[in-house]
Amino acid sequence: MASFRSASRRLRLGMVGGGPGSLIGPVHRMAARLDDHFELVAGALSSDAERARQGASEAHIAPDRSYHTWQAMVDGERNRDDGIDVVAIVTPNHLHYGPAKAFMEAGIDVICDKPLTLNTAEAEDLVAVQQKTGRLFGVTHTYAGYPMVRQAKAMVAAGAIGPVRLVNVEYVQSWLTEPIEAAGNKQAGWRTDPAFSGAGGCVADIGTHAYHLAGFVSGMLPDAICADLTAFGKGRVLDDNVHILMRYASGARGMIWATQVAPGNDNGIRVRIYGETGGLSWFQEQPNDLHFTRFGEAPQRLGRAGVMPGGVARPYEPRAAVGHPEGYLEAFAQLYTDMAEQITARNEGRAAKPDSRQLATIGEGLIGMRFVDAAVASSRQGGVWVGPDSQV
Amino acid sequence: MASFRSASRRLRLGMVGGGPGSLIGPVHRMAARLDDHFELVAGALSSDAERARQGASEAHIAPDRSYHTWQAMVDGERNRDDGIDVVAIVTPNHLHYGPAKAFMEAGIDVICDKPLTLNTAEAEDLVAVQQKTGRLFGVTHTYAGYPMVRQAKAMVAAGAIGPVRLVNVEYVQSWLTEPIEAAGNKQAGWRTDPAFSGAGGCVADIGTHAYHLAGFVSGMLPDAICADLTAFGKGRVLDDNVHILMRYASGARGMIWATQVAPGNDNGIRVRIYGETGGLSWFQEQPNDLHFTRFGEAPQRLGRAGVMPGGVARPYEPRAAVGHPEGYLEAFAQLYTDMAEQITARNEGRAAKPDSRQLATIGEGLIGMRFVDAAVASSRQGGVWVGPDSQV
Amino acid sequence: MASFRSASRRLRLGMVGGGPGSLIGPVHRMAARLDDHFELVAGALSSDAERARQGASEAHIAPDRSYHTWQAMVDGERNRDDGIDVVAIVTPNHLHYGPAKAFMEAGIDVICDKPLTLNTAEAEDLVAVQQKTGRLFGVTHTYAGYPMVRQAKAMVAAGAIGPVRLVNVEYVQSWLTEPIEAAGNKQAGWRTDPAFSGAGGCVADIGTHAYHLAGFVSGMLPDAICADLTAFGKGRVLDDNVHILMRYASGARGMIWATQVAPGNDNGIRVRIYGETGGLSWFQEQPNDLHFTRFGEAPQRLGRAGVMPGGVARPYEPRAAVGHPEGYLEAFAQLYTDMAEQITARNEGRAAKPDSRQLATIGEGLIGMRFVDAAVASSRQGGVWVGPDSQV
Amino acid sequence: MASFRSASRRLRLGMVGGGPGSLIGPVHRMAARLDDHFELVAGALSSDAERARQGASEAHIAPDRSYHTWQAMVDGERNRDDGIDVVAIVTPNHLHYGPAKAFMEAGIDVICDKPLTLNTAEAEDLVAVQQKTGRLFGVTHTYAGYPMVRQAKAMVAAGAIGPVRLVNVEYVQSWLTEPIEAAGNKQAGWRTDPAFSGAGGCVADIGTHAYHLAGFVSGMLPDAICADLTAFGKGRVLDDNVHILMRYASGARGMIWATQVAPGNDNGIRVRIYGETGGLSWFQEQPNDLHFTRFGEAPQRLGRAGVMPGGVARPYEPRAAVGHPEGYLEAFAQLYTDMAEQITARNEGRAAKPDSRQLATIGEGLIGMRFVDAAVASSRQGGVWVGPDSQV
Repeated sequence: MASFRSASRRLRLGMVGGGPGSLIGPVHRMAARLDDHFELVAGALSSDAERARQGASEAHIAPDRSYHTWQAMVDGERNRDDGIDVVAIVTPNHLHYGPAKAFMEAGIDVICDKPLTLNTAEAEDLVAVQQKTGRLFGVTHTYAGYPMVRQAKAMVAAGAIGPVRLVNVEYVQSWLTEPIEAAGNKQAGWRTDPAFSGAGGCVADIGTHAYHLAGFVSGMLPDAICADLTAFGKGRVLDDNVHILMRYASGARGMIWATQVAPGNDNGIRVRIYGETGGLSWFQEQPNDLHFTRFGEAPQRLGRAGVMPGGVARPYEPRAAVGHPEGYLEAFAQLYTDMAEQITARNEGRAAKPDSRQLATIGEGLIGMRFVDAAVASSRQGGVWVGPDSQV
Repeated sequence: MASFRSASRRLRLGMVGGGPGSLIGPVHRMAARLDDHFELVAGALSSDAERARQGASEAHIAPDRSYHTWQAMVDGERNRDDGIDVVAIVTPNHLHYGPAKAFMEAGIDVICDKPLTLNTAEAEDLVAVQQKTGRLFGVTHTYAGYPMVRQAKAMVAAGAIGPVRLVNVEYVQSWLTEPIEAAGNKQAGWRTDPAFSGAGGCVADIGTHAYHLAGFVSGMLPDAICADLTAFGKGRVLDDNVHILMRYASGARGMIWATQVAPGNDNGIRVRIYGETGGLSWFQEQPNDLHFTRFGEAPQRLGRAGVMPGGVARPYEPRAAVGHPEGYLEAFAQLYTDMAEQITARNEGRAAKPDSRQLATIGEGLIGMRFVDAAVASSRQGGVWVGPDSQV
Repeated sequence: MASFRSASRRLRLGMVGGGPGSLIGPVHRMAARLDDHFELVAGALSSDAERARQGASEAHIAPDRSYHTWQAMVDGERNRDDGIDVVAIVTPNHLHYGPAKAFMEAGIDVICDKPLTLNTAEAEDLVAVQQKTGRLFGVTHTYAGYPMVRQAKAMVAAGAIGPVRLVNVEYVQSWLTEPIEAAGNKQAGWRTDPAFSGAGGCVADIGTHAYHLAGFVSGMLPDAICADLTAFGKGRVLDDNVHILMRYASGARGMIWATQVAPGNDNGIRVRIYGETGGLSWFQEQPNDLHFTRFGEAPQRLGRAGVMPGGVARPYEPRAAVGHPEGYLEAFAQLYTDMAEQITARNEGRAAKPDSRQLATIGEGLIGMRFVDAAVASSRQGGVWVGPDSQV
Repeated sequence: MASFRSASRRLRLGMVGGGPGSLIGPVHRMAARLDDHFELVAGALSSDAERARQGASEAHIAPDRSYHTWQAMVDGERNRDDGIDVVAIVTPNHLHYGPAKAFMEAGIDVICDKPLTLNTAEAEDLVAVQQKTGRLFGVTHTYAGYPMVRQAKAMVAAGAIGPVRLVNVEYVQSWLTEPIEAAGNKQAGWRTDPAFSGAGGCVADIGTHAYHLAGFVSGMLPDAICADLTAFGKGRVLDDNVHILMRYASGARGMIWATQVAPGNDNGIRVRIYGETGGLSWFQEQPNDLHFTRFGEAPQRLGRAGVMPGGVARPYEPRAAVGHPEGYLEAFAQLYTDMAEQITARNEGRAAKPDSRQLATIGEGLIGMRFVDAAVASSRQGGVWVGPDSQV
């Protein structure tokens, strides 16, 4: 947020994907603009030349920096004095690995959509590239950008609810209730096709968000999970509903329910976490409230400002006065602001502000891929307990 | 409700358990009074003579019909011309079987708390007794007494959401967050002690409610469940948290989460059910609303009155004008009204009104016991899939 | 509630009005039964002989105590050894005065629906009769029977929000949106007819509830009000919408909005009260929650149990465990329980328990009538400030 | 939103006020950036030279376009080939008139905070200047930028609720509960000082928002209002609580409650509007929901997408997928996007897209000033009915 202002110039941003018709491309661009740390100067917005050109024009990208392919963009930008500082990769899953690897190898930092890659082998290779190149790499687990989610994480870490016993995350959507991929819906098309999405459908698309959120807030990853993945949509190959039980080494337990076939729900992400002395609950469709209860006391509704219980420092600064709701774009913008702080701090030879470290790392991206593998494996074997192999 | 008024006299009710200090005893008595189909005339309210006497006096039970033991009450009432029509058994689980069997054999109908018995063997024997004696037998699965739960069931049955895909029930409490049984809390004491509660703790006490509600609204029982039961309270033997996955023969899937250790929640029962064309959601702490969505349309909030979607007849009649909230006691009263209608219809040689059949039967009580067995077995084996053996 | 149990016998209750087709009659009967302090033994339930007989039969009133007229009931009951202790008058407004006066003069205590009478002259006369006869007289301002409303009152009185600045009460209904009285709706018919309702329509029917609630919770009555009453329904003579500003001697300010023509609202009573150091808010359709904020701290949701802020003693005892919602009938039952305690204490020569004094008195009924007069007078003069003459 | 993309270049924006410490300055800048129609190139951000310089640097304004005074900025920008297209005036009320007049006279379009000016004479003069110069002039009544508020307006205009009967707007805050202006709070300081704020305190600061919103959604302005303004804060001269009744020529009625002293509320703007056949309700703290009821049908929750009732075209396009909440900054950004469309259409010689006309005009700004005058006059005379003189 404003307090991160530290650079003497805006960072130069490039984008792969996100041309006309893209859902997430405009979101990235708005998010990058909101806190004013970036200017979008280059793009390979589409594999279709005309769409790439049109998109670049609308985004005020100069014609000579609108590229036909991401490979051309790597070549074009690496050698410019004013080449991009960082690239945002906003393509479908199968097109993350290639550009991510190439831009890192070209010395350019990366912001990448989730899930990290098409499969775990790609993800592992990408981690190796990142370690070799030392590039900064952020993964857009958006919900970790919400102020009250960060507040929840900080409170759990500070012991506000005591040792954690239960972690329950649900992510409830309805948009795939009918087989709209068969009717030509583009967003549904690639997400339900293993060639573009990988081995997981719902579990990769939104299950990874739920799993990340569970880990983000609780500070723990499970030792074992038991998954039941189902495809309800007619003719659908990949799962559109995900039921998962989780066990933690500490003895804690968890559940994940992610679904795309629950009419009446739009983007219902809810995290509830309970410890020996208290509980916290957050719901994404009313994101400015965090519900906190110390056992034996009245439930409290914590807002974006105000006194935080237990002396926990607020890890964020609201963009607008309290009572003026912030939402999804502000959370997404926070990820860009985190990345800007990391880049700028690195460039200035100083430590990044701690809050900027809350942006999901490539390692967390790999953990997400292993989670998808584990969930698919568990389910294919009839719903057995498997280790998600959380170590990176 | 009022439309059930059919008897020329109030039915005579006896009660086993429910003396001073009982939580559920006063609830039964208020429920029995509300719709005016019963008068409480006899009781064995406590095994402690003085408490039994005191309770009977407070309940306006004549001294000669306040019994020291339920055995004495069976003997005393069976031979009176004005003996009780029906007995309510409101004792802890280990004291259901004995009186239930004896009163049935004495020709007296029974209302019994859930879970049905201490274990499945008792439950199976009780079913046999009921079949032999032909007595009416109702089990107090209270949540099936709420108008909007019955509305949901009727809508699902009428196809308002299409073929069912997902059934998600949660029952979230906090009262056992600390090991209050060790500090002498009576309600916690017997519920956490296998000698009084049986093999299940949370799964028997509230998990059976959740499981019944899932079956009641969906009209389906699962083929297989996978359970993870945990005891978090220090020194606790029986489970206080229940995570369950469910699979149905139709291909539908379900989840149950029941817990007694989630601070910030009092009695948070929520049922969500989704089908191919719509969804329904109900939350017990705001019980007068039923949320209904036809896929592709705006979510609707259905109240206790008003136009019901899809031509579904309202299966109930509100006690008070719409907007005047009804709650737990009204739902519990409905169970008594259902029982009154069944008894009166039988006595009058006519068919009972269909809505009265929504009171849980002894067979549903047995199904609940088998669910507890299955959940405990699944969990003890490490969380494997087991069949709950739903046939009665 | 249960703790009020003090009588060795149930009180004998009679009822005037409330026969078949009545909305409020069954509510009174359920309320009287719930806590088991009363038995209904006599009634003049309808001016129609057949309806009176049918109603009495359904209510298990013996045929010889089902009267054709309330005058006959006065005569019949006053001379019986087992005559009624108290009568409930549940007729339309124009039929309160006559029976209330006669029963008091016959030495019988009275529970009377609101508004107290058809006009203020009747109300003043009734107060005089009550003072002369010394009978107990309760007015059914139901919302003051809700546990969390009493909690709010106790907290305000204890200074939990500091000196009161603002009192905002709204009572929002929709049922008179269309002129259903013209189509024969009985409930709408008498409420929109000055001959049965008096000079006020909405202001008398629900405005008096709002005004009472404002006074109950705040402990203050205004010095001056400014009212704008409107009749929107086609052909309607009496108001169906009420806008009122209020000024208090202390400098506090208030607003009342009562309406019967706001589609989407059923019985939306909301009271919000703010002082120099905090605020409270309660909404009748979610009556088990009370929202409390100390200025500068996080908002709290207070339930029917749990720790009450500021050391304020809970003035009530829940009927059911926390999380099991109570509603309208429980609130109404509380009024009957209050009356039972007042009668029993008087009969036993002891002081009534303080909470029972929260039942609205005949004096509060008179204040309500003067409020109706003041509102009508203010509005007829174009919306000028008038004193509601609150002294009794 | 994206569909407004029409310019071949970003518009050049200047800003008066909004330097370090400003609450609203950063909001304007984020709003201007979000949809990418503007670049901020010039500013007179503070009357303090050092603060102006610092603010300009943080905002990436070139040093030679950071001006010491707004007068210098007018002179500097009017003569540049790349001078600003539009200026945003974000100073306290007393500093709107001067720069607004000067920039218009210099041929530069204006975006101005509300209330329009310090007093009505200034506002009238400004309207004359605008008419003479023909400049575009937008006033930032933010809440009219929320998608669901525009949806509500469109539905009312299309007859979805029938002829309007009732308009109820409340704007409930708590931040002035204590006299923080005496303790040096800058935001409170100028808002409570007539020299900077004008004759109205709360009524000018947020009452004008409420009044504008009432008019925006209903399409009507009242004939007469009756106001009761109060100053509760110790030593406070201007009102911090506003109670207003409204009468419309059509016979409709309305209420406004605006307050800054209600603990537990942050920025609680709620508009409820009822007509002969339906009702609508919107609450700013959950801005993505619009509640709609056709009389006699179940209440519906309308989201930012989905089928709109009654064939009403959606007047907006969501920035993010449904279920991803938008908030205050998005609503504010909409005002900038509206202004961009108006400017670009004018520059291109075409009609602006209709939705862009929803940005409040200078005429609506004048109406707001007259409302403040009327409310103050009504209240000073003891709460009499006065005409707000709505004609511009």
